[in-house]
Amino acid sequence: AKTTRIAITPGDGIGPEVVAEAVRCLEVLRDKHQLELEWVRFPWPSHAWHEEHGESMPADALQQLQAFDAILLGALGDPGPVNDPDRYLLPDSVSLAPLLQMRKGFDQWVCERPARLLPGARQYLADDRARDIDMLVIRENSEGEYVSQGGRLRQGTRDEIATQIELFTYRATERIIRYGFQQARLRAAQRRADNQSRQFRTQDGRQCDSQVCVITKRNALRYWGDLYTEVFEQVAADYPDVATHHELVDAACMKFVQCPWAFDVVVASNLQGDILTDLAAVLSGGMGVAPSCNLNPDNPELPSMFEPTHGSAPDIAGQGIADPTAMLFTTARMLEWLGRQDRRLAEAGERLFQAVADDLASQHGQARDTRTIGDAVCQRLG
Amino acid sequence: AKTTRIAITPGDGIGPEVVAEAVRCLEVLRDKHQLELEWVRFPWPSHAWHEEHGESMPADALQQLQAFDAILLGALGDPGPVNDPDRYLLPDSVSLAPLLQMRKGFDQWVCERPARLLPGARQYLADDRARDIDMLVIRENSEGEYVSQGGRLRQGTRDEIATQIELFTYRATERIIRYGFQQARLRAAQRRADNQSRQFRTQDGRQCDSQVCVITKRNALRYWGDLYTEVFEQVAADYPDVATHHELVDAACMKFVQCPWAFDVVVASNLQGDILTDLAAVLSGGMGVAPSCNLNPDNPELPSMFEPTHGSAPDIAGQGIADPTAMLFTTARMLEWLGRQDRRLAEAGERLFQAVADDLASQHGQARDTRTIGDAVCQRLG
Ligand SMILES: CC(C)[C@H](C(=O)O)[C@@H](O)C(=O)O
Ligand SMILES: CC(C)[C@H](C(=O)O)[C@@H](O)C(=O)O
Repeated sequence: AKTTRIAITPGDGIGPEVVAEAVRCLEVLRDKHQLELEWVRFPWPSHAWHEEHGESMPADALQQLQAFDAILLGALGDPGPVNDPDRYLLPDSVSLAPLLQMRKGFDQWVCERPARLLPGARQYLADDRARDIDMLVIRENSEGEYVSQGGRLRQGTRDEIATQIELFTYRATERIIRYGFQQARLRAAQRRADNQSRQFRTQDGRQCDSQVCVITKRNALRYWGDLYTEVFEQVAADYPDVATHHELVDAACMKFVQCPWAFDVVVASNLQGDILTDLAAVLSGGMGVAPSCNLNPDNPELPSMFEPTHGSAPDIAGQGIADPTAMLFTTARMLEWLGRQDRRLAEAGERLFQAVADDLASQHGQARDTRTIGDAVCQRLG
Repeated sequence: AKTTRIAITPGDGIGPEVVAEAVRCLEVLRDKHQLELEWVRFPWPSHAWHEEHGESMPADALQQLQAFDAILLGALGDPGPVNDPDRYLLPDSVSLAPLLQMRKGFDQWVCERPARLLPGARQYLADDRARDIDMLVIRENSEGEYVSQGGRLRQGTRDEIATQIELFTYRATERIIRYGFQQARLRAAQRRADNQSRQFRTQDGRQCDSQVCVITKRNALRYWGDLYTEVFEQVAADYPDVATHHELVDAACMKFVQCPWAFDVVVASNLQGDILTDLAAVLSGGMGVAPSCNLNPDNPELPSMFEPTHGSAPDIAGQGIADPTAMLFTTARMLEWLGRQDRRLAEAGERLFQAVADDLASQHGQARDTRTIGDAVCQRLG
């Protein structure tokens, strides 16, 4: 079997701290299960690299990364102490740009963020049905509101007009919606294998064991809304076993708080997905536990990228107190993804997921530092 | 004193039912306090009008409405039983269009949606600090994502590209942000009058008794984000007594669930405001209680429009069980707004608000029908 290679980019702030625990877990798994796994650590993209070189990563960064099977990223961005005049400051739009460059450069057109409230995670909602939350939010990751097109006319004057353009193509819309239906089927199959089931009603009253909900704002943003609606209906015809549902983004946010347990798979455009996945992260217990996967499902030449949903948290960086749980869940998800080619990696991913979930369930809410959590998980793995 | 005139547009679904209770309350207040108040009821905009005339409202609708001091709107939209082949169906984008036409036609550039969790309202969050939620979300209501520009190239083919354009002007950005700072000051003054106070820290560490938080997504949608950021900083310089804060829309949604009690005034663009106000409505106890005010603060010739945040709820329409609370809070807010010219109207608005709030607090969670709630509030007013 060919060796699987991972590019590790710890980044800024708490990134290197949580990545260190992920690497320890990878070492334990590799040694114990003789995994054909190796990794290379990169000092970029990062704030420090920018300070030294005037750019967040080298010009050939994507070429270098392309040689790997996956990228494991810590966190980017270092606003630092804003009052320190000697501090090298960068706007977010600069320090976070590498994230968007990787997503676009490697055509990671799927961003997957599952939401489940695991035992031990913080429950923000009053209703105890929150324990039943089990959804997968799938974000279109390649276009839409994130095309960075537009401009500023008469900039800086009282007559200024800023234009921000959103672009949606049939091609990207179709592939993300189809991916959503495929995932819905896979999730239903998994539930059947686990002797579980969920019921969803279609609009014409039939019962299905999975559902895809598409998000638009078609009553106000028509061109995007009509394209998404039409493509959704077309693709749905190929999946009569999957119930379909349509929510406007404002109503969806409301229902994520009022009845999130009613959702199965949710497909949303880039910005709406960004918003809904942050909400979904809270539903799962907050940023401390939420993984994020930027996937290219159809081109094995291009690496997918795995990052926790949280940021670099400069306020607690350097203190060794960041919670590595989200990073470890992310690492587990990466192994499962890589395991599509090598079943032993998939098993390692499941083991890591289970160890982190067991650790979370056993913590009884006490605050533990980064290393302590890493130790506990490594011990469960060993 | 000149008579204040209200155009009442009950609309569709539960709209006429909840409006009926608002009218009863207005009658009690008018008779008891000799208010110079009159109203005219319009059968449009509505689904029924569209069915008969092929349009949701007459061509001169805005001209007719312009003669009034305010518009009190029930709810629009009637998806009806989708399986009934005889049903006259309209897409949302058609039946809800009059809302957007009024907002644009009367330059109602402010949409105000307060969020407070009043006693008796449903608490969705587990943390009891939810009882301290007291924020005002101010939505830019005249442009941005809602300009309805763009189109579909190669529509219906596999090569389709849909474009959706967002436009932001200095003029509309400046006025909505300035309005936010003014409201922050007024809220702080009101708290002082009530012997209450709240503390917010500015970025350079000073303490203020009010705050404005501006929402962008400047790390990904740059042109809009940069304009909003620059104008926010300019306007803030005129209000050194108000603390300033910046949130990205994804983080803001998260914090609305994690720590909504930390917000005071929030200013957001049209679509982001749409999303955040739906979340804010949930924080206040849900759609059953949330008012929405579409205001033109600077042109007394153009009427403002008041509507509950909820929709026409076709699933429960005609049963007399819709909760009129949101409609009654909306009516109270309308009277307060009209009271800028006539202090007795403002007092009537406060009385109505208090009666509805007292009724809400006294309900002990039992389900009551529309009329019962209206009766109870009228009795408190009488
Ligand atoms: C950092 C930012 C550009 C990014 C995004 O908006 O996609 C982040 O919010 C995320 O969700 O991964
Ligand atoms: C009905 C719809 C067009 C409207 C909006 O998006 O503004 C509604 O959601 C609202 O918030 O008033």
